[in-house]
Amino acid sequence: PGKKVLIVYAHQEPKSFNGSLLKIAVEELTKQGCSVTVSDLYAMQFEPRATRNDIVGHLHNSEAFNYGVETWEAYKRGGLSKDLVEEQKKVQEADLLIFQFPLFWFSMPAILKGWMDRVLVQGFAYDLSKAYDGGLLQDKLSLFSFTTGGSKEKYAIRGDIRYLLWPMQHGIMHFCGVKVLEPHICYAPENVSEEKRKEMLTAWTQRLKTLWKEEPIDCSPEWYFK
Amino acid sequence: PGKKVLIVYAHQEPKSFNGSLLKIAVEELTKQGCSVTVSDLYAMQFEPRATRNDIVGHLHNSEAFNYGVETWEAYKRGGLSKDLVEEQKKVQEADLLIFQFPLFWFSMPAILKGWMDRVLVQGFAYDLSKAYDGGLLQDKLSLFSFTTGGSKEKYAIRGDIRYLLWPMQHGIMHFCGVKVLEPHICYAPENVSEEKRKEMLTAWTQRLKTLWKEEPIDCSPEWYFK
Repeated sequence: PGKKVLIVYAHQEPKSFNGSLLKIAVEELTKQGCSVTVSDLYAMQFEPRATRNDIVGHLHNSEAFNYGVETWEAYKRGGLSKDLVEEQKKVQEADLLIFQFPLFWFSMPAILKGWMDRVLVQGFAYDLSKAYDGGLLQDKLSLFSFTTGGSKEKYAIRGDIRYLLWPMQHGIMHFCGVKVLEPHICYAPENVSEEKRKEMLTAWTQRLKTLWKEEPIDCSPEWYFK
Repeated sequence: PGKKVLIVYAHQEPKSFNGSLLKIAVEELTKQGCSVTVSDLYAMQFEPRATRNDIVGHLHNSEAFNYGVETWEAYKRGGLSKDLVEEQKKVQEADLLIFQFPLFWFSMPAILKGWMDRVLVQGFAYDLSKAYDGGLLQDKLSLFSFTTGGSKEKYAIRGDIRYLLWPMQHGIMHFCGVKVLEPHICYAPENVSEEKRKEMLTAWTQRLKTLWKEEPIDCSPEWYFK
């Protein structure tokens, strides 16, 4: 109770299975007394492209545009575009970040990848020697909740999907110092029975009930590549 | 000679190191007698978001929007948006796809991920039982050429960066039946000497000279997770 949750949601259709998972999370967490904010990326028409438009006013080096350098400098002088500042404020306030999306090509949909690319800039999410366990977004938790197109077996290497989680959970979240809870994966909801879909929705509700008691994964290479 | 190459390029700045790598590839491959096409995604203001706008005319199911189903149906009836049709034509004609980009968060920049999400639709790149070695884009080669922000050591698990290549090379290219050449990686060009940068550019030119003699990687899980 009193915890703040940001759900970054990337599906076009409220009536989709992802939409149902979002609705459940908002309802269950609100019921627990959490304050829940949703960034509904498609509804916001969130911009995924990392361009010069993200910097308000002059550039640090207008001779050759370097996105990483420019957003870092802009962050320091308060010169990032309004949409980024708003997302960063949501992240800053959150105790838990939930990413809800359909897996596209073994990864996030581009609109969500663009959120990572543009919001988690140097100075805000990490800094020169401040990364991984020293990342700037410590004391926050994250959870990747996604649906797949194929069955569990299709993604399993040595019996497990975790190999494709490495760039998302380790490369992004762990890099920023954010702790990572076990992913929540609903396999092929489009290809299972209505009953099975209901079971998956119930399982999500159940997991959320005890979410705050969970321990983060250790997020070392050994977790991923054992 | 006579081979067709599509370079999908994702950097905002022509004067960048990625811009130099692009220029080298265009020059060297053209010199070899190849026909080279470049999709300069930022210059094209390529749309990364997967939305209803990708379907011209009526939807298959307007009650609940399902991007995968709608683009598949639209592909079959010739109803995909013009920008997608143009990219698919370039892919169809190419013998080799080169992806040139800076690594963003252990993966592609969102604008390039959006190219994958939107261009490689069902019916065009894969189909129900046509995936991996049976994918629809067989007899094509691909090559991921990218720069990193950090040093080689920063990305190495058990001494190697290949773990983060899994979603891109296996999850996307291999899934579509496209064979994959060894990635070409320039580590931290922003943090090395001018001399070292020149060496990296020369190495790319040299590799391109004998590129057509290379054998694809075997693209099995064993290659990635040995």
